[in-house]
Parts: sequence; C-alpha cells; structure tokens
Amino acid sequence: MPANPLHTIMNPASIAIVGASNNLVKMGTIQYLNLIASGFQGDILPVHPTEQEVLGKRAYPSINDLPCAPDLAVLVVPTKLVPEMLEGFGKIGTRHAIIISAGFRETGETGQGLETVVADIAERYDMRFLGPNCVGIINTQLPLNLTVHPVLDGNGKLGIASQSGTYVTQTLPYLHKHGITISKAISIGNGTSIDIVDCLEYLGEDESTTAIALYIEGITRASDFLRAARRISSRKPIVAQYVGGTEAGARAGSSHTGAMAGPDYVYDGLFEQAGIIRVDSIEEVYKTGWVLASQPPLKGNRIAILTNSGGPGTAIATTCNKLGLDVPEFSAGIQEEVSKLIAGHASARNPVDMTFDLNMKTLAETIPRIVFGADEIDGVIIHGIIDTGFLDNIYAIISRVTNMHENNLLKLPVTDLEPLVHMPSQYEKPLITSSFFDEDDHSVRVLREKGVPVFDSPEKAAAAMGALYTHYFVRNRPAVEKAQYPEMPEEAKSIMSAVETKALDEYRAKKILRAYGIPTTDERLVQTFDEALEGSHAIGYPVALKVCSPHIMHKTEQGMVHLDITDDDALNRAFSSVREKDSGSPLLVSEMLKGDREFMAGMSYFPGFPPCIMFGLGGIFTEALKDNAIRLAPLGHREALEMMESLSSHVLLGPYRRMVPVDKDALASVLVNLGHVAIHFPQIKEIDLNPIIIVNGKPKVADALFVMET
Amino acid sequence: MPANPLHTIMNPASIAIVGASNNLVKMGTIQYLNLIASGFQGDILPVHPTEQEVLGKRAYPSINDLPCAPDLAVLVVPTKLVPEMLEGFGKIGTRHAIIISAGFRETGETGQGLETVVADIAERYDMRFLGPNCVGIINTQLPLNLTVHPVLDGNGKLGIASQSGTYVTQTLPYLHKHGITISKAISIGNGTSIDIVDCLEYLGEDESTTAIALYIEGITRASDFLRAARRISSRKPIVAQYVGGTEAGARAGSSHTGAMAGPDYVYDGLFEQAGIIRVDSIEEVYKTGWVLASQPPLKGNRIAILTNSGGPGTAIATTCNKLGLDVPEFSAGIQEEVSKLIAGHASARNPVDMTFDLNMKTLAETIPRIVFGADEIDGVIIHGIIDTGFLDNIYAIISRVTNMHENNLLKLPVTDLEPLVHMPSQYEKPLITSSFFDEDDHSVRVLREKGVPVFDSPEKAAAAMGALYTHYFVRNRPAVEKAQYPEMPEEAKSIMSAVETKALDEYRAKKILRAYGIPTTDERLVQTFDEALEGSHAIGYPVALKVCSPHIMHKTEQGMVHLDITDDDALNRAFSSVREKDSGSPLLVSEMLKGDREFMAGMSYFPGFPPCIMFGLGGIFTEALKDNAIRLAPLGHREALEMMESLSSHVLLGPYRRMVPVDKDALASVLVNLGHVAIHFPQIKEIDLNPIIIVNGKPKVADALFVMET
Repeated sequence: MPANPLHTIMNPASIAIVGASNNLVKMGTIQYLNLIASGFQGDILPVHPTEQEVLGKRAYPSINDLPCAPDLAVLVVPTKLVPEMLEGFGKIGTRHAIIISAGFRETGETGQGLETVVADIAERYDMRFLGPNCVGIINTQLPLNLTVHPVLDGNGKLGIASQSGTYVTQTLPYLHKHGITISKAISIGNGTSIDIVDCLEYLGEDESTTAIALYIEGITRASDFLRAARRISSRKPIVAQYVGGTEAGARAGSSHTGAMAGPDYVYDGLFEQAGIIRVDSIEEVYKTGWVLASQPPLKGNRIAILTNSGGPGTAIATTCNKLGLDVPEFSAGIQEEVSKLIAGHASARNPVDMTFDLNMKTLAETIPRIVFGADEIDGVIIHGIIDTGFLDNIYAIISRVTNMHENNLLKLPVTDLEPLVHMPSQYEKPLITSSFFDEDDHSVRVLREKGVPVFDSPEKAAAAMGALYTHYFVRNRPAVEKAQYPEMPEEAKSIMSAVETKALDEYRAKKILRAYGIPTTDERLVQTFDEALEGSHAIGYPVALKVCSPHIMHKTEQGMVHLDITDDDALNRAFSSVREKDSGSPLLVSEMLKGDREFMAGMSYFPGFPPCIMFGLGGIFTEALKDNAIRLAPLGHREALEMMESLSSHVLLGPYRRMVPVDKDALASVLVNLGHVAIHFPQIKEIDLNPIIIVNGKPKVADALFVMET
Repeated sequence: MPANPLHTIMNPASIAIVGASNNLVKMGTIQYLNLIASGFQGDILPVHPTEQEVLGKRAYPSINDLPCAPDLAVLVVPTKLVPEMLEGFGKIGTRHAIIISAGFRETGETGQGLETVVADIAERYDMRFLGPNCVGIINTQLPLNLTVHPVLDGNGKLGIASQSGTYVTQTLPYLHKHGITISKAISIGNGTSIDIVDCLEYLGEDESTTAIALYIEGITRASDFLRAARRISSRKPIVAQYVGGTEAGARAGSSHTGAMAGPDYVYDGLFEQAGIIRVDSIEEVYKTGWVLASQPPLKGNRIAILTNSGGPGTAIATTCNKLGLDVPEFSAGIQEEVSKLIAGHASARNPVDMTFDLNMKTLAETIPRIVFGADEIDGVIIHGIIDTGFLDNIYAIISRVTNMHENNLLKLPVTDLEPLVHMPSQYEKPLITSSFFDEDDHSVRVLREKGVPVFDSPEKAAAAMGALYTHYFVRNRPAVEKAQYPEMPEEAKSIMSAVETKALDEYRAKKILRAYGIPTTDERLVQTFDEALEGSHAIGYPVALKVCSPHIMHKTEQGMVHLDITDDDALNRAFSSVREKDSGSPLLVSEMLKGDREFMAGMSYFPGFPPCIMFGLGGIFTEALKDNAIRLAPLGHREALEMMESLSSHVLLGPYRRMVPVDKDALASVLVNLGHVAIHFPQIKEIDLNPIIIVNGKPKVADALFVMET
C-alpha cells in the first residue's frame, strides 16, 4: 500500500503558492497571508509573474525559477491555467499539490473534462493532489494554515475532513468561541486524487487527533471507507453529517463539489456498520465531535444531573432517558450528602435542583466532587454555572433605581473552576455543561478555555452525552471477523453462465440460493398437469402453484400465483387458471409454508457502493411500513445480527406472543450468504427474497427474484 | 365565564411586594429592583416590618398599613408565612396575587397540605393567584418586570408561559442576544389557582402577542387546554416543549413544580390535535417561536436558498426536503437573472451558491429582491451575510505579517441591510437567515435588531421554515365541528347498569358498540353444542368459537379461541376443546371475517386528560410496530381522519396492493363514536377493539374488551 499522500501534504517542509499577490481582497492572497500568520516554519515560496516581492517575501517569476522542488504546490489560479501549472510542478519534481481553483466537475461536462486532464497529468508525474475546488488545510500542531481565515487556537484535538470548504475555515471563529480546538482540518473539494477515505485514514493514524468529524456530500469508495472507519471507530470516535440524501440536497451537492449522492438510508446503514455517530447539523458535527474529542469515554449509562434550575434539569433528564441513558435516583447516602448542601425545598434526588442559589461553589465543586466520586454514576451534566454574566446585568440597573452604590451588593467571588475542570480526567468520567450565557460570562469562558464543553441549550448537553453512549457500544462491540468467502459453488456458476434474460426465473434463483446454503421452499419445475400432480404428491399438500418465467415479473399481481392448494381437485383448478393466462411457461409446484412471521431480504447497488444487503419486514407490510435496514456486503455475522436487531419491529424476532423465537443465526446466515452471492456474481444487479417465512423459528425463502445487468 | 385574572395581574395599577428589603442578594429585593428599573408607572408599595424605606421608596410596616388595597400582591416570603400574608391581603380587599415563595406541593405531602390551605384562603376571599413556586411576570408593553433579571428589550412580540421560572427570566440575556423580543412572559410555578390554560387564553387574546411559546411539565386540564389551543392556533402560532414524558423527566418535574406528567405520546396527540408545533428543546421554543412571531406566514412550500457557500446551501436544501419543503430548481428566467450576478463557476439553480465572494450587496439585496418578487417562491433562506466579523479577523493579522497598512486592503462598505429587512413585510413572505458569526458581526447585529431571525447553524434555519410550514397546515385546516353527542342508547344504558364485574364480556361489549353504530361481527351467545350448531348455521360457516366470560382476559393465550371453523365436525372438536378447559362459561359463535388488513382502536385515561382514543395497526403487529396515534375525546370527524393518516403505515388505508381502499369515513366514525361511549360511561376505564378487520374496505370490530373502574 502506498504511503498516504496526506503525510506530506499536512507536513511539508516547503510550500510554493501560485495565485498570491499584493492585492489583499484576492482569495489566494488571503490564504498566503494566513499561511505566514499561522507561524509555518518551512519555506514559503510565492510564484508571481511580475511582482518582486509578495507581502514582503521574495517572489519567483515562474515555477522553473524556484530554488528547489517544493514539497507542496498550492494553486489558486484561473481554472484554465491549472493543467499547465500542475505539469510545471510535476516537471521540477514536486509530488504533492493542493488545487484551490474551482470550475471543474461541479460545473458540468466541460469542467469534468478538464478535471480528467488534471488527473491524467498527476498520474503521469506520480503526483497526488487535494481538490480541486477546495480551500486548503490546517495543521495546528505544525503549525500550518492554508485557508481563508486565521486559525485562532493552536495544538487542538478534533480532526475535521469536509466536502465543504466553509466548514474548515469560515467557521473558525465559531469554533474558537465554543472552545473547540482543531488538530487537523482538510477541505476535500472534488476529491479527485485524494478523497475522504484518505482523509479518514490519515486522521485515524494522527496521534494528536482524539476524535474525527466528517461533513459528507457523497462517497465514491464506500467499501474502503467502511473498512477504514470500522477499524478506527473502535478506538477513536467518528461523527459525521451526510447531506446528499434528498432531491434538492443531491442537486446542491452536485453543483457544489460534483458529489455523487445516494439515498439517505444507505448512508444510515454505512454509518451504523462503520460505527460512525450520525448527526444532522454542522453544529453537532463540531459540538458533538468536541465532546467526543475532549471527554473521557463513558463506561456505563448512569448520569448525574446537577442544576440550579428545575426546567433545564427536567429537560436534560427527559432527553437522557429518550437516548437510553439512565438518570438513577441517587442512593440514600449520596442524597443525604447532597441534601446538606442545598435549600430545604430543593431536590437531592437526581436531577439535583438547587433552585435559585448564587453559591456557585456548591454547584461547581462540592456536589460535582460527590457525584464524580460515586460508583453509581458514569457521567455528569451540569447546567447553570454562571457568575459575571448575571451579576453584570444586575449591577447595571442598580444605580438607575437607587442611590445605593453597587458595592453595597455583596460581590460574589468569581467562581473557582480549577477543581471542576480536572474532574473528568481525575475520575475518568465525562463532564458536559450548559448555560444560557455565552462568552459574556466568566464561568463560560473559563470552562471553554479549559476544554469543558458548554452548550447553549440543556437538551444539547444531554444529546452529546447520548453520543458518548453510542460510542460506548461501538467501542465495546467485537471486531468484524475477516470475511470468509466460500468457494463459488459449481452449480451456481453453471446456472449463471447460462442466463440470457434480464431476470432469472424463481426455480433457478432458488437453486443458486440453496447452493450458498440459503434455505428455500422445496419445489418442482413442471410443464404438464401430470407433472404438477406428481410434484405435489412428492412435496405433500398443501402446495403453491405459480408460473415460473423470467419474463413475468409481477406474477402475484397478474393472478398467476395460487396458494394453499390442499388437494388434487384444487390443483387442477389452479393449473387450468394459470394456463388460461399463460400457455407455455414452466410452472413451479412449491411447498406451502405455514409460518407465523414474514421477513424480506434483498440486494441493491448504489453509486459508489458495493452490493448492499437489505433486511426488513416481509409480505404485504414491506412497502407499507418501510421497517428495514441496509448494510454493505461483505457483512460479518455480528453485523447481520445487529442489522436484524435495528428494525423497529425487532421484537418479532424474539419469543413474541407465544411464537417460537426466530433462529437468529440462521437468519443472519441468509444475509451474510446473500452478500456472497452478490459479490461472486456482479452481473446480478438486484435480488429480492420476499417473503422469507419463519416456520418453527427457521427462515425459508418462499419467493426469489434476481435481476441481471441489462 | 369569569374574566381571566391575568388581565389584572399583567396590568395592575398598584403592586404591593412583601419580601423586598435593602439586602441586595435576596431574591425578593432583586425582583423589586427589576420592577422599579422596568419603568412600571403604577404605585409600588413595599411592605417591610422594620425598614422605613426600601431602596429609596417608602415602606409600610404591615399589610394593614398600606394606603390602599393594591391591585396585585407579590409574596416573596418564607413558605410558612404565605397563608397569613395572603389572608392579610384578602382582608383588605386585594383580589390578585403572585406567590413567588417555594416549598409547596413540589416538596411532598406537607407542602401539598400547605398549598391546599393557601388555595382555600384564596377561595374564601375570591382571590386568584399565580404560583406558588414561580418567578413572576413580564409585560413589556406596560412595562412591568417582576422577575429576577432585567428586561433588555421593550414592546416585543413573543408571548411565553412556562412551568419553569428560569425560562422567563434567566434566559433574558440569551433572548436579547438573539434579537427575540417578548410581549408577555408568565412563570406558572405550581399553577394552583392560575394554570397554563389561563395563560394560553390570555396570550391568545393579547393583541401584541403574535406567537405563543410554552414550556410544559404536565397539564391537569387537558380538555380545556385543547379547546383553547385549537381555537387560538388557527390564527396565532403556538409552539411547545413537553418534558415530563420519561421516568426521570417525570421525577424531575414532580420535584420542580409538582407537575403530574403523562407519557410522551399522549402529549404528541394533544399537540397534533390542538395545532401546536411541538419542539424538543428550549432553544427551539424561543427561536422557532420567534420565527413564528416575527415572520409572515408561508403561503406555500417553495423555498429559495441563497448562499455564498455550498455546504450550508446543501445542508439547508436537504433539511428542507426532509420537512416536506420544496427547493425547486428556478425557472429559466430567474436562473438567467441570477447568473448575471455571480461567478461563472457558481450555481444559479437553487440553492444559489455564489461561492467565495465578498460582494454582500448581491447576497443581501439584489438576488433576494429577485426571489422575493418571484411567484414561484413562497419563502427565502439566506446563509452567509457577513462583513465585519470576517474582515476584523483578517485585519488583525495583516500587521503581524507584513509592513503593509491595513488601509491597503480595500475596506468593504458595511452592508446596507435596510432593503432586505423590509422584504418580508413588503412581499408577505418569510425570511430566515443563518451565519456562523454572532453579535461580533455587524450584519448579524443589524438583522437581529430589525427582527430578522439569524440562526447559528444552517439546518436550524431550515427547521424553522419547517415550523412555518406546519403552521400553514394548521391555519388552513377546517375548524373542528362542535361535538354532536348522540343520545345515550337505552340498550347500552341497561347493559352498563347491570355490570358487576371488572371486565365486560365480549358479547355485551359488542352490543354496546353496535348501539353506537360501530359495526361488529355477527354473533350468538351459546351454552350447549346444539346452540352452537344452530348459531353457526344461522351465521354461516366459517365461524369462530371462543369463550365469553368477563373473568377470562387473555383467551387467545389460554387456547380458548378457535378460528376458521368450516363445518359441523370442526365445530364439535372446537367446542369440546374449549369445554375441557372451561366447563361453565358461555361461548360465543362469531362470523369469521376474511379481511385483508387489521387495525385496532382503544380508549385509555391519563392523569389530567379526558378519555383518549387510540388508533393503530391491529393484530399481531400492534405491539411489535407500535404504529399508532392518540387523540382526546370528543374528537371531530376531521380529527379522526387526520389521526388515521398520521400512522407511518397510512398507505395501508388506501388502494394498497390491489386491495379495496378502506372506507375512511366509516373507520373515522368508529373512532368518533368510541369517544362517545367513553364520555357517556366514565366507569369504563379502558377499551380495546383489536382487531378491527377490513372486509371489502369496511371496518368490522372482531374482538372487544371493556375494563371497568375497580
């Protein structure tokens, strides 16, 4: 495996930049300015055809005039000049570039053509490049900032990779304000040569990155992405937003980075499988990401809530419960300790509600010390630590209404937060806070500076604790066993090699399934009534009779399926009825299953994805309830089990209403093996196994449809 | 109907306050300070036993020394003094009070007793009071502020009623910062005498309140709440958060305001029925509330998105689509106009993505003017209007890296936002914006000052537009017809008067249902096999045979239900089988329905609520899928139809998979009439009609269980 090109791009010893000038409203100049201001210690080599100096540094009239081949070339030039420039750097021996310039694939066919030209040049010179249509990179450890906005915090923790440039640069003041520090940030742009998988792998290896945040408009190497994310997420949390999953979202993403979007639920499945925490807003990408980056992991789900206000406490408790977090009533011992510290009418049960009380030491140190130290608690949420924010507003009106001096108002000491900010590492338990004040309050400023997340709404603090809880499961789940591909069964191979139609008939489809160990109904292919009779007797009544032709796709809707045939007479009637509609096709006599639940499994393709396996409720409810899950093949046995349990109706798998519990391992094997069928035969574009009937707890495929590549 | 006591409480000519002193860290003093500072023009009369003056105003040693009976008495005194004080004011003729003091119902039995004492005193003197355990009121139109924090904006629009005091006072700086102005705010506390229904009705009538925001921990008069909200929401938007719906949430709410919480889904049903927009965080209570209060209503679902950044544009588009909002590709004409204003590689399709471009007039005036004026657009979202926030950060580093003066950087003119802020009222279309900058940016400050909502995350701007869209439906739905109660049927009355058991047997339960016009299976009550045979022949095979006893509640699980009996022999076998298990109970021979879908309906009670009607998927899926909805009885026909359509699986009601569509009016009548049964017979505590089988599109109740009060 070749080394990740981001190692060099993120840590260059020398950078040449084309497109910076002395005109300070130009994007390239602003980036150059930020590069210098970031404190980058390597060589900075501006290339400019006419200027002798660019912002005080010696400029070189052309690439060929550079004193050396720089580690990294940065191009902020008109689109049409990009190929020539990139080639220029290739010729002098530079192997890494960042193409900021836009106007490629995202603009349509001409741009796509130009992007191919650029990619070809890179390949010819063995170059790797970030972009085009990106805004650069940040490495706060080096330091190095190549984006359009100054970096406001050094040496941070959260690693960001984004298909939107805005999210690694325009938002820097927002991150600074919220105390969120970045380790590395990468703007992916169109991802032509270096894509999100490269970024993910790089951030996974980067030791200063303690959690990874991704903004995604579409992934083209979903299998590689899954493999990398699955490995990384078991130790380092990953949070991601995907925005391409609707009509307008896909259109916007395509105009933005030429991204190839897929339906939302496919990304749901990918993220679940990969152990990625999915969020729905950029605010959560950052803030949830920051909680994951800054706080110790949860070791259980028991949360203490400390407040001086009942509303926020109640809201936090409710949100915690909805996310599966427990807010246990404290043990008598803890309640007794806490009670001594609060007013008589206040509550010590958990949530602790001190009620209106300006003694911040109790809320910010004494009670936290008790609950952090308690074995019965795994994580702590505090709402309402404030000082100057509130008092400043009170002081401001005193002189307006009285001749008293504000000094008559006992000044509260500014809260000492030093003990609190160390409790998370000291007790190895996460701490999340919320406050309606912002940097106008001293406590909020200090907490943020010291790496304690402060949310502006109590429910968000609870939701972030929920993300830590999701990561608890991801961290503790067994690794996915390496995929064990079975040999391709000879029978399946010979059937597939003979297929000449768009759809495979049910009889042969089921033969293939059985060759992969997927249980199906027992059945006979027949032409005449006598054969049907013989088959029915061999299988035993009741049977089903249906037409079996690759050309007839909705046989139920066409009345060519007869179920529950209990005797020879009924078989005769059914046979005649089908033959009235279709005189020549073979017919299938099948075992009639008497099950008590129906599921479905399927296989589909999506742009950039390997075959995807679906599982859901079967029979008539499939479309009505849309209760299903999707995973990428090959999927591990454990993943298949998780997929089954992820259905809303998963209780149907258990001993539900006196039914025999489903043999989950057998059902999981159907899903795993269906993945093998798809991987062995990429010419199959779609598989639909519906229903899979559960008989005495065992799954059996009752109908199967395979659609071929056309 | 007596006048709403809040008219006086919110607009008193004189206020006496007990509990204010010259000690500025006391809550009562801070409230008194805010009252004076708010600019209240009426008489302010502090009562203090020892001080001659309180913060410069003449104090009265006792209630009896007051120069008059004040319109409003405010008590911020130790809990145990409240009864005496309230009675003192009652005696001098004051009829309205606010009891700030806590320590009542929320603390347990003793407190509950004291609260009853207080309520009795109020009743004796014909007094109405807010609280106890509240933080007061704000009326920015008067002005009047009785809370613990100064009011920072006058004469606002959003009306707030909250069961948490924090949310009408500690959050005032937060509201100010976000440009959210309050018309009236009411802290309800324990709601003993004046509850959330009174508040809602008051805010509904208040002309300066353009939208209402509620924070709720539990409602005790749900029917009155529904009636009031349903009436108000059709013209004035209401947004609400409910937080009592989980175990810890209910515990926290009970310790906070003694609130009586119910399950989350019951409040979902109440809010849907009432036309209330439900939100899950206090941030949304305020910010969504503010969008509803400040912006014109949506007249359709077509949204234009204008940005200078692809990521936010894509995220807004995706969120809009997920909420049912359309982001249509602009017509050729609009695209052409917009294209002229932006870079060649930028997108004019909608979302408009100008890409990195510091020309703010285009984003903040020229393009908005085009889309506001376009018939094809109903609402506008803009992300990325910034000026000083970005430039200040750039200027800050220039001198660090170059000897150039920042004047060399062409200073952008501060954006003129005057044209934009008037577009919503001018074109009668809503405008919502987002920016990653905060009040540190001039544009953000101006937009907020001028009443344009600015969100800090683009997805939230889209979600708020979704709330306007929800209100579009609420505003346009037909009013609920006045409930037409049928006469109580004689037969139902005589059956109910004879019931002596905890459960009503199925036979009599169905008789009652039929008396209310709810169709059920045809059936006969039998004792002997001969009677069963006679009944089966009269009904016609196939039939079902089951035990019919009020003492046997899970008859299926006990094997006492036999379905699909097709002939006399099978009837004989079934009869013997049941009789082996139960020798004496009557049996029911029922018509065996061959339907194609199964639903369920039910009735339950919840604390503070009238009988509630449930509807959902029936048969074995009821518990597995939990796809159901709930409404309060009496419910209108339109509400019953809406309730049915609110199921995830509502497609099953239509012409699904060649099935006959369900007669929705007939099914809605079942739900409406079930409500009448419950209202006529309050001794019925629970009803379960499951399954309701659909035969040729018509619903028929196949099984019915009535549980009586014990």
